[in-house]
Amino acid sequence: MTLIPSWYALANAADCPFPLNNLPCGVAAPAGGAPRCVVAIGDAALDVAALEAEGLIALPGGPYLDRPEWNPLMVAGRPVWSALRARLVELLREGAAEQAAVVPHLLPLDALSLHLPFRVAEFTDFYSGRNHAFNVGTMFRGPENALPPNWLHIPIGYNGRASSVVVSGTPVRRPWGQINGPQDDAPRFAPSARFDIELEMGAVVGLPSDGPVTVAEAEEMIFGYVLLNDWSARDIQAWEYQPLGPFQAKATATTISPWIVMAEALEPFRTSTPAREKPLLPYLHEPRPMLFDIALEVALRPECGEETVIARTNYAEMYYSAPQQLAHHTTSGCPMRTGDLLGSGTISGATRDSRGSLLELSWGGKEPLEITGGTRSFVEDNDTLTLRGAARGEGFTIGFGDCTGKVLPAFADPYGGRERS
Amino acid sequence: MTLIPSWYALANAADCPFPLNNLPCGVAAPAGGAPRCVVAIGDAALDVAALEAEGLIALPGGPYLDRPEWNPLMVAGRPVWSALRARLVELLREGAAEQAAVVPHLLPLDALSLHLPFRVAEFTDFYSGRNHAFNVGTMFRGPENALPPNWLHIPIGYNGRASSVVVSGTPVRRPWGQINGPQDDAPRFAPSARFDIELEMGAVVGLPSDGPVTVAEAEEMIFGYVLLNDWSARDIQAWEYQPLGPFQAKATATTISPWIVMAEALEPFRTSTPAREKPLLPYLHEPRPMLFDIALEVALRPECGEETVIARTNYAEMYYSAPQQLAHHTTSGCPMRTGDLLGSGTISGATRDSRGSLLELSWGGKEPLEITGGTRSFVEDNDTLTLRGAARGEGFTIGFGDCTGKVLPAFADPYGGRERS
Repeated sequence: MTLIPSWYALANAADCPFPLNNLPCGVAAPAGGAPRCVVAIGDAALDVAALEAEGLIALPGGPYLDRPEWNPLMVAGRPVWSALRARLVELLREGAAEQAAVVPHLLPLDALSLHLPFRVAEFTDFYSGRNHAFNVGTMFRGPENALPPNWLHIPIGYNGRASSVVVSGTPVRRPWGQINGPQDDAPRFAPSARFDIELEMGAVVGLPSDGPVTVAEAEEMIFGYVLLNDWSARDIQAWEYQPLGPFQAKATATTISPWIVMAEALEPFRTSTPAREKPLLPYLHEPRPMLFDIALEVALRPECGEETVIARTNYAEMYYSAPQQLAHHTTSGCPMRTGDLLGSGTISGATRDSRGSLLELSWGGKEPLEITGGTRSFVEDNDTLTLRGAARGEGFTIGFGDCTGKVLPAFADPYGGRERS
Repeated sequence: MTLIPSWYALANAADCPFPLNNLPCGVAAPAGGAPRCVVAIGDAALDVAALEAEGLIALPGGPYLDRPEWNPLMVAGRPVWSALRARLVELLREGAAEQAAVVPHLLPLDALSLHLPFRVAEFTDFYSGRNHAFNVGTMFRGPENALPPNWLHIPIGYNGRASSVVVSGTPVRRPWGQINGPQDDAPRFAPSARFDIELEMGAVVGLPSDGPVTVAEAEEMIFGYVLLNDWSARDIQAWEYQPLGPFQAKATATTISPWIVMAEALEPFRTSTPAREKPLLPYLHEPRPMLFDIALEVALRPECGEETVIARTNYAEMYYSAPQQLAHHTTSGCPMRTGDLLGSGTISGATRDSRGSLLELSWGGKEPLEITGGTRSFVEDNDTLTLRGAARGEGFTIGFGDCTGKVLPAFADPYGGRERS
């Protein structure tokens, strides 16, 4: 597939993340204005809520865009999602008759504040990156027990906290927690000293379900994808996670990109999960390739320093696809809802420079990573961490916008001087 | 504290679960009518939504009761909760001037369908029963590793699925899942053969928070308590739970009682957590007793047979209270929201007949439990399981209503004949 040229010429540049092929969904507010549904095009956000209100967008069963969240459209299903994309292409393509009517609704992106693009119903985080699971397992349990016995049979995951999902740009406060490390005689309550990132993709569920769904059905339920940084306090995690899994270590914040790239925009980049090391049960079989070739990177910028790209990898490194994860999620009859967010699990490649967490990049702090002007074992105060993603076609790029967060120092007293007991 | 006598004389019986001292919150619909907020009194439900609409209830900042969920009142905080209770006592007590105006709004309970009393935001399940943790740990990991090292320091828990919380009376379908038991050569996809219950109490969060809260503050956030049955597929759990915790094993359904007993109604039954086996960190200190003396029981009724009470225990068996769990939940900065539901963890006493799950009662199926007319290792198809709870004062009882669910057989094909791949 090649570029779809737009009359909004900035969108036609090969390295522009928001060409007419993309049309990612966000929620944005101009200074002093209310947030509304927008799609990104070039260096602008198109106020699709206004276009729908004026009748330039009229979708069957609508209106869908009159609230500052994409959930009403997400629940409508793929035919309506496609109809919106088709209409936007009509309005924005070169030679479109409606150009003059659309122009007033292009808002400059750099003057907007970006909000969470959808109301997160529940958040599930998987662990489906083969290299990440092996690396972390090696550090936590030794190389012989690195990959849990179920790992090659189940896309294992745990439920996270929807309330802690924040949009890119939201500062993240270093958490306190209960810690009992190898050097401690007893548990203590302290700020995390091993605060980390996890480079993930998130799949956003549009259509709900109410019973087990097949992998093919699961794919139809997925509205789109975001970048996702699952902030993780490794010292809290190591002490709390047995036997019930991660809890407070992962509950401080999960940052997502401001734009949901609709699944349809990623069609040209479809690619397969790797060869199965063990055969999967039929309920997990993929009827066709269900991953996407999306180049990913993590950048770290200290408060007063230059940015270093600390990892480069690809979404195609996943062992399980999002439809496989979603299908597994429903096996028990678990109802899935519009706005459910599924984290892929940390995406690491096979080489050191492709690892998606500092835990792996610094090998648990034993091999600090060199960055411009210093080293890092874990995230330091006032570091800004940014995830980026790009699917590259012939003459065009599909981007997600930066997924970024600055880490603020822990509070001196997390209770602000209030009596603890 | 003694009985508060009501002009609705049925409510004054010592064994009536819904005296004027209780006033638990539910959502109910008459045949053909819309669901609305009600409180239970005697054998009736008082339509408090109608009383508020007519001005007989007027709370500061209201209306709160004009939607079929208690969330709007729950977010208002303790002074408003108390004001509602005080006003209801005025309206319903012996000699109340408003008796004639109130009578038309008493609906017979047995003609109502009961709905979820609140919109569940997120669901967290803890593991804070000392005997349960020891019993399960012994079966899963042997007696020497039974209690995890963190257990006496942290009220450990995991995030569950809010979407699977259902109200008492909802049938529960035996789930399929991935199973790899000791007798299996390889994982298989099959109906759970070890489907179980867990006797728990649930704490319902009213006031939200946005940062670490103390145990005392956490208590102020709790609107009330429900009975909670956390249905669990033990064979699915055993294969999936390492290292990320329970996932699909606990996602089929969690049943709660139809009535939320407000924390204020439980005041006379306040009691302490047991002596600490190891000192707790200050952030978990309780400034006063925060458990409640609530007698609990589990009954099992086969399709064509009599009910057997299979366990009797007490909420006072918990090692950690709900305010301790909630305070721990916020340590990382995790935001808590109105409608968050915290399961206590399975409540087991020290004796066999006080164990809160069939896993423990039948010791993993090795010592089947005798019931009237048969035996049980785990739940069988068409069994009806019922939890009951009662706090008993001088001449009155505080009840929660039955928390019940009938287990339907697994589907022959959970995909209904649809192609799996």
